[in-house]
Amino acid sequence: MKAKGFIQDNFLLSSKVAEQLYHDVAKHQPIIDYHNHLSPKDICENRKFNNLTEIWLDGDHYKWRAMRANGVPEKFITGSASPFEKFQKWAETVPYTLRNPLYHWTHMELQNPFGIQKTLNPQTAREIYDECNEKLQSGGKYTVNGLFENWNVESLCTTDDPTDNLEYHIQIAANKNLKTKVLPTFRADNLLRIEEADFIISYFQSLEKTTNNTIDSFQSLLDAIAKRHHYFHELGARVFDVSLPYTHTADYTEKEINTIVNKVLSKKELTTLEIEKYKSAILYYLGTLNHAKGWTQQFHIGPIRNNNSNLMNLVGNDTGCDSIDDLPQAQRLSKFFDRFKRENKLAKTILYNLN
Amino acid sequence: MKAKGFIQDNFLLSSKVAEQLYHDVAKHQPIIDYHNHLSPKDICENRKFNNLTEIWLDGDHYKWRAMRANGVPEKFITGSASPFEKFQKWAETVPYTLRNPLYHWTHMELQNPFGIQKTLNPQTAREIYDECNEKLQSGGKYTVNGLFENWNVESLCTTDDPTDNLEYHIQIAANKNLKTKVLPTFRADNLLRIEEADFIISYFQSLEKTTNNTIDSFQSLLDAIAKRHHYFHELGARVFDVSLPYTHTADYTEKEINTIVNKVLSKKELTTLEIEKYKSAILYYLGTLNHAKGWTQQFHIGPIRNNNSNLMNLVGNDTGCDSIDDLPQAQRLSKFFDRFKRENKLAKTILYNLN
Amino acid sequence: MKAKGFIQDNFLLSSKVAEQLYHDVAKHQPIIDYHNHLSPKDICENRKFNNLTEIWLDGDHYKWRAMRANGVPEKFITGSASPFEKFQKWAETVPYTLRNPLYHWTHMELQNPFGIQKTLNPQTAREIYDECNEKLQSGGKYTVNGLFENWNVESLCTTDDPTDNLEYHIQIAANKNLKTKVLPTFRADNLLRIEEADFIISYFQSLEKTTNNTIDSFQSLLDAIAKRHHYFHELGARVFDVSLPYTHTADYTEKEINTIVNKVLSKKELTTLEIEKYKSAILYYLGTLNHAKGWTQQFHIGPIRNNNSNLMNLVGNDTGCDSIDDLPQAQRLSKFFDRFKRENKLAKTILYNLN
Repeated sequence: MKAKGFIQDNFLLSSKVAEQLYHDVAKHQPIIDYHNHLSPKDICENRKFNNLTEIWLDGDHYKWRAMRANGVPEKFITGSASPFEKFQKWAETVPYTLRNPLYHWTHMELQNPFGIQKTLNPQTAREIYDECNEKLQSGGKYTVNGLFENWNVESLCTTDDPTDNLEYHIQIAANKNLKTKVLPTFRADNLLRIEEADFIISYFQSLEKTTNNTIDSFQSLLDAIAKRHHYFHELGARVFDVSLPYTHTADYTEKEINTIVNKVLSKKELTTLEIEKYKSAILYYLGTLNHAKGWTQQFHIGPIRNNNSNLMNLVGNDTGCDSIDDLPQAQRLSKFFDRFKRENKLAKTILYNLN
Repeated sequence: MKAKGFIQDNFLLSSKVAEQLYHDVAKHQPIIDYHNHLSPKDICENRKFNNLTEIWLDGDHYKWRAMRANGVPEKFITGSASPFEKFQKWAETVPYTLRNPLYHWTHMELQNPFGIQKTLNPQTAREIYDECNEKLQSGGKYTVNGLFENWNVESLCTTDDPTDNLEYHIQIAANKNLKTKVLPTFRADNLLRIEEADFIISYFQSLEKTTNNTIDSFQSLLDAIAKRHHYFHELGARVFDVSLPYTHTADYTEKEINTIVNKVLSKKELTTLEIEKYKSAILYYLGTLNHAKGWTQQFHIGPIRNNNSNLMNLVGNDTGCDSIDDLPQAQRLSKFFDRFKRENKLAKTILYNLN
Repeated sequence: MKAKGFIQDNFLLSSKVAEQLYHDVAKHQPIIDYHNHLSPKDICENRKFNNLTEIWLDGDHYKWRAMRANGVPEKFITGSASPFEKFQKWAETVPYTLRNPLYHWTHMELQNPFGIQKTLNPQTAREIYDECNEKLQSGGKYTVNGLFENWNVESLCTTDDPTDNLEYHIQIAANKNLKTKVLPTFRADNLLRIEEADFIISYFQSLEKTTNNTIDSFQSLLDAIAKRHHYFHELGARVFDVSLPYTHTADYTEKEINTIVNKVLSKKELTTLEIEKYKSAILYYLGTLNHAKGWTQQFHIGPIRNNNSNLMNLVGNDTGCDSIDDLPQAQRLSKFFDRFKRENKLAKTILYNLN
């Protein structure tokens, strides 16, 4: 079928060579997605969606941010409004996203899988919503696994906490009907949240429970981390991921980190330098684990997290309250990677710079 | 009249749509200028200019900077040279400003109001100077108020110190002949100059005199500021303005600021942290005043002030010795605005980034 | 001869005006190269090259970096491989440098002086290597001085250490056959390496030997530096050069620098602030020498030096282990230059920003 709407067959292809490269080569390639935030549970249960709001708006903080910028009240974004009310507000926002990738993504997704050429706006919202919902509720091509097949997703890596038991990944691996290879990612953010004593104490307890190790020193913490890293490896994980406002490269000794771990366990306040030393030590150790297992490590650098503390308190972390930071990065990155290189322990690395 | 010179009717309009948008819509709109440095006295007295140097070169540090870059001695910029000598040096500089907005601005202003199509250069300088001066001295359309009418200036906000009694604004408001609405702006820079003990002590004395308050503590300082803010509000001010190399977001207590105020009053030296705490406290309080009164607050961030200490000592602050800084801004801005947002006290805000 | 290969006669000239400016004016101008790293010894001895590897790859860390990025082992870059093996690896790398200036430079140099229109790749490598080597070994136009004449090099400044006795420069100056004026540059980097106690002690010893001065205080160090600066001046030097991650502008007293010099001489560890004070003091003094002699000073700001400590230990400083830094620069530059301006001691200055 030739597309006739906003997204033409040659959308974004501005020369004959570009058309050839896309139509003859690129579009036949499978998707190998080594970083996403898809839900292992949804994949495992081959979730069927009730409506476009569930699949498009629940959890997409890029769309949320655009809606907030458009003045939409939080009730219609993450709040108590009905699914259609939320979709209606998104439809009101879409025309104002012109020249933002959200505009492209929205219409590419309407076209494939839904086969809809219309542009989304308040007038077309109801009609598009109903047509998409009917298709979503029909399952088949529109379930999680159906969509994987539709888009030719060969493999993907979800984002998982080190303390996760990966039960859904185990079930997914046993599912012979799913053609897409689904693997976990070791996402280390929570291991670094040493500033938050209550959180980290409870997090260490989870680690202890999952590993059957006692955590009362630097070494015992490393041992627990290594155990989880190995567990992820056994279940197919080959990628590591962490978000860093900047890379941590303070010098430290084992004795210092012992002290820091014990201070935090007894809820004593840490100095800025102690926090930096702890993070440097953990990050370095994780890098050596990644190298030892031949993994690829991903670093997301440069964000300011949780700019809007009101909204964060309301709807939680990772909900669109982050922004680009303009902190210098080069010196710390240089020092960080140079140490691994010097010790011949540098794993394959992907650096995402938010700026 | 169709323009025939450098500034064509369709200058900068590169498509039919741009021409329509400008000619059919934009050019008929009035000017609403909420940030400028026009002189309330000149407006009040409907100043008539003797020559082009007075209206163009006295006080325009953008032109000064270009002349300095062109090697013009300070005598011909802010010094003792005659008005025509200064203009002649500007005319020598103009051809070298090609591709700089100064080149456009100069020729747009020659065309409107002066109706001159020629480009300015050393050969045309005398002729243009004489023709413009004759028009300026004729008054009418060429006085301050005549120019407002010529350019359809609906309203404008000047830039005023908190200790200013706004006498010219009171007279301007009473002038029924002036169609332009002229309002003051509360420009807070001087309130922050705590590093300069002599200056700030004398400034606090002015504040005391204007408010009849004694300033001997944090709270009494805030009370005096609030009184002036209210006074500006009564006289129609709805905008606040301040220049900040970066936003100040140190934590502080009332007791600490009391100590700082008393230290500076007794000319004791402040630490860097104390300076930061004082500025953070004052800026925060000003933000809450702006919010309480429904004002719009303007922040000019990112300058390095007074790069050239020689020239600053010679011709004073705000005379073209400033430049763009490359300091990181994002984290402090985030912390600064987040506090207001959290307390539901964030006024409408305009951010000007010099970089 | 009309060029027919990749580098056409109108290469990079995208309008008739550009063609006129280049062909009628620019290309007939001589080269005046006030900053390069050519070898005074090679110039003095009018070196004849045995092969393309000697003239192209020995010492060109831009080419090295491209080869490393292309996965070439160090053996074939700075290691023990034969000249042709190294050239072969470069030829394998060249096709991947498309859109990098290295691609242009390579083919411009093949065309002039070698008259080769072919593009360099693994298939043409042998043929090009042999043809170039034959020409290089024939001497004449292909010696160092022949190349200067071929490219119409009117004058050039090499890069020389303050302790260098400039013997080759003395011989070059006496050579009546060389039409190119060759002058030394006072490159001050080593004077600043105060963090490296062993290095700086031995460097001060070289300074003592060259000057017959004893260095045991700030003033005696300055005297030795001034003596070398004057020596360079006598031999024609008119340019100064230094590489700075950022400009050093700490406040200091003579007494403090005396202490620092004595601490380093007795191998006591310096604090970060002491290092900063020392560098600030030396840099300031060098600036005043440059001003006093009417020299032009060059500052290379913004690098991170020696990112890859492994490679630096293997092949030494200045071998392509540097990168762009993203540190803020503006405030320090402002403070640095303002001091000279205030004291009317600012020499002509060229600023190279790596970023």
